[in-house]
Amino acid sequence: MTQRMKAIVSYEGTKFSGFQVQDQYRTIQGEIEKALTKIHKGQQIRIQASGRTDAGVHAKGQVIHFDTELRLGDYNWRKALNTLLPDDIRIVDITEAEEGFHARYNAKRKQYRYFIHNAPEQDVFKRRFVHHVPYNLEFDRMQQAIQVIEGTHDFTAFCSARAEVKGEKIRTIYEATCEKQDDMLVLTFTGNGFLYNMVRILAGTLIDIGNGRKEPEDMAGILASKDRQLASKTAAASGLFLWKVDY
Amino acid sequence: MTQRMKAIVSYEGTKFSGFQVQDQYRTIQGEIEKALTKIHKGQQIRIQASGRTDAGVHAKGQVIHFDTELRLGDYNWRKALNTLLPDDIRIVDITEAEEGFHARYNAKRKQYRYFIHNAPEQDVFKRRFVHHVPYNLEFDRMQQAIQVIEGTHDFTAFCSARAEVKGEKIRTIYEATCEKQDDMLVLTFTGNGFLYNMVRILAGTLIDIGNGRKEPEDMAGILASKDRQLASKTAAASGLFLWKVDY
Repeated sequence: MTQRMKAIVSYEGTKFSGFQVQDQYRTIQGEIEKALTKIHKGQQIRIQASGRTDAGVHAKGQVIHFDTELRLGDYNWRKALNTLLPDDIRIVDITEAEEGFHARYNAKRKQYRYFIHNAPEQDVFKRRFVHHVPYNLEFDRMQQAIQVIEGTHDFTAFCSARAEVKGEKIRTIYEATCEKQDDMLVLTFTGNGFLYNMVRILAGTLIDIGNGRKEPEDMAGILASKDRQLASKTAAASGLFLWKVDY
Repeated sequence: MTQRMKAIVSYEGTKFSGFQVQDQYRTIQGEIEKALTKIHKGQQIRIQASGRTDAGVHAKGQVIHFDTELRLGDYNWRKALNTLLPDDIRIVDITEAEEGFHARYNAKRKQYRYFIHNAPEQDVFKRRFVHHVPYNLEFDRMQQAIQVIEGTHDFTAFCSARAEVKGEKIRTIYEATCEKQDDMLVLTFTGNGFLYNMVRILAGTLIDIGNGRKEPEDMAGILASKDRQLASKTAAASGLFLWKVDY
């Protein structure tokens, strides 16, 4: 009988061409499916994730599911997968999923975090996991501007023009905060869904506000405009983490 | 007139064959001297460090000095070097040194830290900067054993048999502590000097004590024995940081 398994997956995006399988490219889906296919002695297994992440984007708590005829037990599933997976992907947790569970369709809330390292020089230990901004960012201005993001809005202004899906752009952001931890600024966004590049365009715009190229008061106007041209450029993938997915 | 410059240098050791210049290998000294030689339009500049670090060992606060005829100013020195250096080496600070300063001979105290990640699975974000131990380590046992290390002792038992210098093995350790931060154990050693592989052999021995393969009470006997065979194997380079050097 087929059993659906649910797994929490962590990965460092640096050396991946994103989540989704693409021929000739190293992807997270590709590596996990390769490991699963080995465990299933050549039978191809497909995984479903809560959503894709782009090239270079990290995940602390991505969620996936897959169907299997095997019964290994949670501990052995984790061990078997982590033995076969490369060092930059880890299965943090794996359990049998409840009846009808779907990693994508059942996701209620997602949280993304964006890490900005604001210091004159790059840090050799943090560099892969942050976006480094050498010029001064005023935290108070960013904190003021980010409040506008909370609530239900049409986020067209913060959606890549290259987005494939031409669907509806209304999303609800339950929480949007900016915190300062020494020379690190952490943006946290929790919402019912996110558009293509949304967090990175929000981060880019908040950086421009922190630096004085835009005003905190501009945020509401940019959001209302639904014009991608008014928002700032997409900030680096290295600072972005899919932090967790709630069901 | 020649001016001596003092710099604090941070590096991720992962992709280096150690500090010291070796033909054909990528070393920290090699990369810094290459950058300095470019700044000096081809004139070869030699650096002196507080001491070498091995292949894979990191530094948060290594100290070096070099002599130059150039007068760039501290800010421009830092910018010029960091522009030319690879991402895994950063000049954190650079200033004109006081008369007679020598990075090696004037070093009074050094601090090393060793990071042990004690969790069932490796962490994709920490993996380069820790030694991962999947089995359970008892913090109390390690904390008890490490106290024996403080003071002035002959550390022959904790010195690699491959050490080149056959000199005196007496060193003073002012501070030796073990701290627990979530699933991370941090060993801190501050001393007037360290023997070859000393911190990594101490870490390996403390791990064996934490795991029950050795007893906390064994530490004093191992130290007194001056027998490298009684201490445990050298722990991984990835967990070791040269944290700071005091003058």
